[in-house]
Amino acid sequence: MMQQSPDFERMVAQVTAEVSKRLHGRTLPVIGSHKCDNCTETGSCASVCPSDTYQILETGAARVSGLSGMGSVEQAIANTIDHTALKPNTTQAQIELLCAEAAKYGFVSVCINPFWIPLAKQLLNQHSVKVCTVVGFPLGAMSTAAKAMETRQAVADGADEIDMVINVGALKSGYKDVLEKDIRAVRDACRGKILKVIIETCLLKDEEKITACLAAKRAGADFVKTSTGFAGGGATAADIALMRRVVGAEMGVKASGGVRSKADATKMMASGATRIGASASVKIMQELPGMSPSSSGGSGY
Amino acid sequence: MMQQSPDFERMVAQVTAEVSKRLHGRTLPVIGSHKCDNCTETGSCASVCPSDTYQILETGAARVSGLSGMGSVEQAIANTIDHTALKPNTTQAQIELLCAEAAKYGFVSVCINPFWIPLAKQLLNQHSVKVCTVVGFPLGAMSTAAKAMETRQAVADGADEIDMVINVGALKSGYKDVLEKDIRAVRDACRGKILKVIIETCLLKDEEKITACLAAKRAGADFVKTSTGFAGGGATAADIALMRRVVGAEMGVKASGGVRSKADATKMMASGATRIGASASVKIMQELPGMSPSSSGGSGY
Repeated sequence: MMQQSPDFERMVAQVTAEVSKRLHGRTLPVIGSHKCDNCTETGSCASVCPSDTYQILETGAARVSGLSGMGSVEQAIANTIDHTALKPNTTQAQIELLCAEAAKYGFVSVCINPFWIPLAKQLLNQHSVKVCTVVGFPLGAMSTAAKAMETRQAVADGADEIDMVINVGALKSGYKDVLEKDIRAVRDACRGKILKVIIETCLLKDEEKITACLAAKRAGADFVKTSTGFAGGGATAADIALMRRVVGAEMGVKASGGVRSKADATKMMASGATRIGASASVKIMQELPGMSPSSSGGSGY
Repeated sequence: MMQQSPDFERMVAQVTAEVSKRLHGRTLPVIGSHKCDNCTETGSCASVCPSDTYQILETGAARVSGLSGMGSVEQAIANTIDHTALKPNTTQAQIELLCAEAAKYGFVSVCINPFWIPLAKQLLNQHSVKVCTVVGFPLGAMSTAAKAMETRQAVADGADEIDMVINVGALKSGYKDVLEKDIRAVRDACRGKILKVIIETCLLKDEEKITACLAAKRAGADFVKTSTGFAGGGATAADIALMRRVVGAEMGVKASGGVRSKADATKMMASGATRIGASASVKIMQELPGMSPSSSGGSGY
């Protein structure tokens, strides 16, 4: 795509903001020129504020690729997605496909069970796609010592990001200290890596969600995450909004479980999510304006 | 209950066998006088061959308590059940109730997530009820090293029995060596304890079930077990029969997942199971002839 001049970029951003205002009754953030509430990073917003990108996409201002000079909107969307395959019967062939798709679309990571870390690491060693894995997953009810050991093993095997599950039963039994120590032990076991804390929203009352988010924040986690996808419920916009309010702008919020379409993803990002966990990532990408199954040619590697 | 003479016991056993023959078209094993195909132990059969006990119960020959001099039929039934609570949001109060029920009814074990082992061990330290826990549960897709570490931690915390999940994905990818080494590593980590290997039947073809059972047997496991209860399917009579045929008489077979009534349990035991995993254990006991909610008085401890 042709590069545009800075003046042209500013003009399109202003037009986009105005269109957004008329469509939504409010001004959405303008790519490349602000620091929005949802950002957890600083810098040019097109790539670091996917929430805005999704919202602008929703206004109909599609194909704004190149506006920020940091790649396409599609790439910014892809940069929010952990491409996920966590079923117990996932095969090597499916992991290979997952990694190829992640490389092709530029997803943030593949999110896989620990057994597959070495394979994914090998397949993605020439790519920027990270290897994300899960710990204490999906029940979160293993001992803290075992979670810490599992984490150390995962890091040794090559994991870049760790999505751990809190001890829901301890939380529900009133053991807030156990809840937090459990997270801290995993945090200590993966220093230098991204740690996301799955609070399993569908099992929690709002008060418990708040307690879990605060524990994750105090323990030094990088993200709070809604769901494992194995407990009968997934991410909701209300939960994302609640989690964002509790953790503030300094942490990431990952929406996972039941995010199966661009509409789902957009709703989550608009509510405050900065990362999406999805198995249907390719479908989400293909639903983007300007993307189609045929337009996204080329193999993953 | 009054103790009966040996002659009386033999007579009742013979009558029971004859009644069974007329009802079922075949002679069922007679309590106390044989070694049946399903037994994994030797000795007087009333307590060690719960399959027979269930079958005899089915003939209508209820309340044969005391026949073997080893306790009631109800106790023999209870001696087949791992009283189970594995939900992620299980609370301390629910674990306490589970342990009290297990002590009251004389279940083989409580089957719980690893976090709760120390509590259960403490609650049951004056009782014969064992503490059974789960490893690599329920996905089975963690690294072998992590499964082994989790097992060692569980044993250190007091677990008497370990129910591990196989690496289903490795099996489905053709890595039979990985499958077996994974089981062996857990076996090595819990020498002297009972090891059950969950093959997750609902995800496997028959050929894969056979491969998994043979790997478990070669690796020195004590039981094969059908299901985690988290993968969308549970124990079936056909799977139990298949597993029994594959592992022979030397191993135990545990039916778990969806065993919610005496009828379910009876069907499983008649098909070759020697252990039942159930959350509805108290309901199953209360459905037994001679048992009722009011007849099983007394607290657990």
